Amino acid sequence: MKTGLHFLIAAKRCEIAELQELTQTSALVRVTARLVHGLQRERGLSNLFLASPNGHWQPELDEQVAACVAMQQELLDGFGSMDIEPRLGQGARLFSRIAYVMQGLDALPALRQQVRTRAWTPQRATQAYIRLINGLLAVVFEAADSAGDPDISRRLVALFNFMQGKELAGQERASGAAAFGSGRADAATQQHLLHLIDSQERCLQVFADFASDDLKRAWQQAQQVDTLAGLERLRRVICTAAPGQVLDTGQTQMWFDACTARMDAMKGVEDRLADELQGLCAQRQELARGELAVLERMLVASATGARAVQRSLSFFEDNAVTPLPPSAPAPPTWATPLDRSILDLVQEQARRLQTVSDELDTVRASLNERKLIERAKGLLMAHRHLGEEAAHKTMRQMAMNQNKRLVEVAEAVLAMADVLPSTQR
Amino acid sequence: MKTGLHFLIAAKRCEIAELQELTQTSALVRVTARLVHGLQRERGLSNLFLASPNGHWQPELDEQVAACVAMQQELLDGFGSMDIEPRLGQGARLFSRIAYVMQGLDALPALRQQVRTRAWTPQRATQAYIRLINGLLAVVFEAADSAGDPDISRRLVALFNFMQGKELAGQERASGAAAFGSGRADAATQQHLLHLIDSQERCLQVFADFASDDLKRAWQQAQQVDTLAGLERLRRVICTAAPGQVLDTGQTQMWFDACTARMDAMKGVEDRLADELQGLCAQRQELARGELAVLERMLVASATGARAVQRSLSFFEDNAVTPLPPSAPAPPTWATPLDRSILDLVQEQARRLQTVSDELDTVRASLNERKLIERAKGLLMAHRHLGEEAAHKTMRQMAMNQNKRLVEVAEAVLAMADVLPSTQR
Repeated sequence: MKTGLHFLIAAKRCEIAELQELTQTSALVRVTARLVHGLQRERGLSNLFLASPNGHWQPELDEQVAACVAMQQELLDGFGSMDIEPRLGQGARLFSRIAYVMQGLDALPALRQQVRTRAWTPQRATQAYIRLINGLLAVVFEAADSAGDPDISRRLVALFNFMQGKELAGQERASGAAAFGSGRADAATQQHLLHLIDSQERCLQVFADFASDDLKRAWQQAQQVDTLAGLERLRRVICTAAPGQVLDTGQTQMWFDACTARMDAMKGVEDRLADELQGLCAQRQELARGELAVLERMLVASATGARAVQRSLSFFEDNAVTPLPPSAPAPPTWATPLDRSILDLVQEQARRLQTVSDELDTVRASLNERKLIERAKGLLMAHRHLGEEAAHKTMRQMAMNQNKRLVEVAEAVLAMADVLPSTQR
Repeated sequence: MKTGLHFLIAAKRCEIAELQELTQTSALVRVTARLVHGLQRERGLSNLFLASPNGHWQPELDEQVAACVAMQQELLDGFGSMDIEPRLGQGARLFSRIAYVMQGLDALPALRQQVRTRAWTPQRATQAYIRLINGLLAVVFEAADSAGDPDISRRLVALFNFMQGKELAGQERASGAAAFGSGRADAATQQHLLHLIDSQERCLQVFADFASDDLKRAWQQAQQVDTLAGLERLRRVICTAAPGQVLDTGQTQMWFDACTARMDAMKGVEDRLADELQGLCAQRQELARGELAVLERMLVASATGARAVQRSLSFFEDNAVTPLPPSAPAPPTWATPLDRSILDLVQEQARRLQTVSDELDTVRASLNERKLIERAKGLLMAHRHLGEEAAHKTMRQMAMNQNKRLVEVAEAVLAMADVLPSTQR
């Protein structure tokens, strides 16, 4: 016969299983982040290579490709050692994201071939790398969306947004490199660059909203004023070039180095974010294991008859215990729990669940922007028979024309969903 | 070495595991609903017993208690045979809810003792039954909030709201029974009854928004016009009684019977909702198993070398396949999948995940009202040092005074959170 205590113990064990799972996912996120960083650099060098005359940048590109091949193997090994037994929770979503991105990794050699033979334009190569990197970021997004612990979820949201901001910085590097390399920056390129800069800022703002003070400080310190000044000057050169004006291709290297310095600094902060995340997972696990041990001692005590069957009316009493306000720190670990009644523990757990659920809602709301944008994109794809990139480009163009944020455009598109003509089929 | 196909298979197996889990939870929901129905009747009879002079209603109450004891055992057996091994997903929340409600079930004999010895007022007994039933409904809520399949989630939301509406109808029966039994209905009782009637309607509206057409029709047919007319007349008698006016205690039985007829009709619809839910779970499982079999055949084919390693560029191509619009019916099951590439399947899966996620967001939004109310209640408890019932009563009073919905009051309370003085600790 199971009692409430058995279910309390089962709940605690589930919590521990989830924390273990989060620890493993965090390790995977770290390897994913490393490959993303490598592919971002590979994309930048591919752009330089494609935009420059014969042979330039080829040694650097070859070296980076070799580095990426090793990182890719590391990630594939990580996938290979994952436990893929059926599980509840976000398993189906995470595994599907991995299945998707593995297709992209399979196709990477063919992509490199197109670059090496100069068969593709810089734009086309950039789009291909973006798609692959987006696939990798989607794995991180899934992890951020699945964490059941608000503090861990907060760290994952900060990390995901930081990675997203860094990816936009990488796209900026690639676009700017193509512009300097070819000596031209047309109006569309300029507008696109401004949009990338703006979107980066917003991602970094979400990061700042959810990161720990330590990490916020680390990011402030990582942005060295002199590097930033150089980058801002070059941004101005591209974005204010008059139509037809020739850019100094000699500044290509300077642009690439300034962007790369920024991205390497971001990678440093990203690593620290990942460290903090793994540390937090370990700490939470230890705490939960301590609580489990207490509950198990209570179970032993009750089995040996030490605990009388409690059929008191206190369940129906309006307990005056003040629940923790949402912003309060976590309660101290159970101090002298053996003298506490199971009812106390059960009520405390109920209050905790409530608090956790409230906090999670708040944290996850920040992920909703991305979901809204994806949803609006899907709608455009369905109603206008557009491909994914075309739909995204349409929305980006609308955002730029109307001087609105992408998420505002997405909301507008979704609001029109009911009146859009149904053209599919 | 794992491939994308391995992860696609793993994702499908996770889906099946979740459907199995939902099937079991649905069975548990059904037993829970039965006990809730029994306890609602027990509460109504307890009110009649407490409000009436010596000995009246005692045989009926005794009989109902005996029936409830059997149903309670059935639910405890259900809990007993649950798999409580650690799992991911909503395991921790579900088990915690069960641990909580088991404490209430343990205390039920003591509650009955208070009623039998007439130690408690009808109001106090009603509050105790409400708390226990709310604990049982919270188990159903957890199930509704955890389903990953939008159609199943929709059915669970319909079922949960129907159960909630039925519980409000039960509270109406109990309050009205106490009023008729004692021959008095003061202004507070009248206002409370009107509020219960109003809240019922809203729950039933949400049910209608999410239920299948079959079930909506079933509920329309279940509301027999003559029963409803009788109930409405008695509602009017209570709610329009002038201060100090004596009610005809002879109408107590009529009131109880009219309410009971309505609730029994609701129970019939509730059972059909549960049937439909279990049928849908079984159907989804069969579908998923068929898809799994296809994927597994593909894996065998690839292992025997029939499938060449695919390193094509199609991953990077902007496929023109139109994704399904959110309101489209489910796609037909994979027709000739062995000739389809893994990339096709992976992309189809990605689109499906997107659609599922969008629909789930829509369905779950309807659960947010309840969450908002719980959150506002928690805030009031913390800031005004109120117990749970007192906090709920305060909000209900605010809603009645301002002629607002409870959720609107909750939103107002939460909006004030930052300016509320921090009095705790």
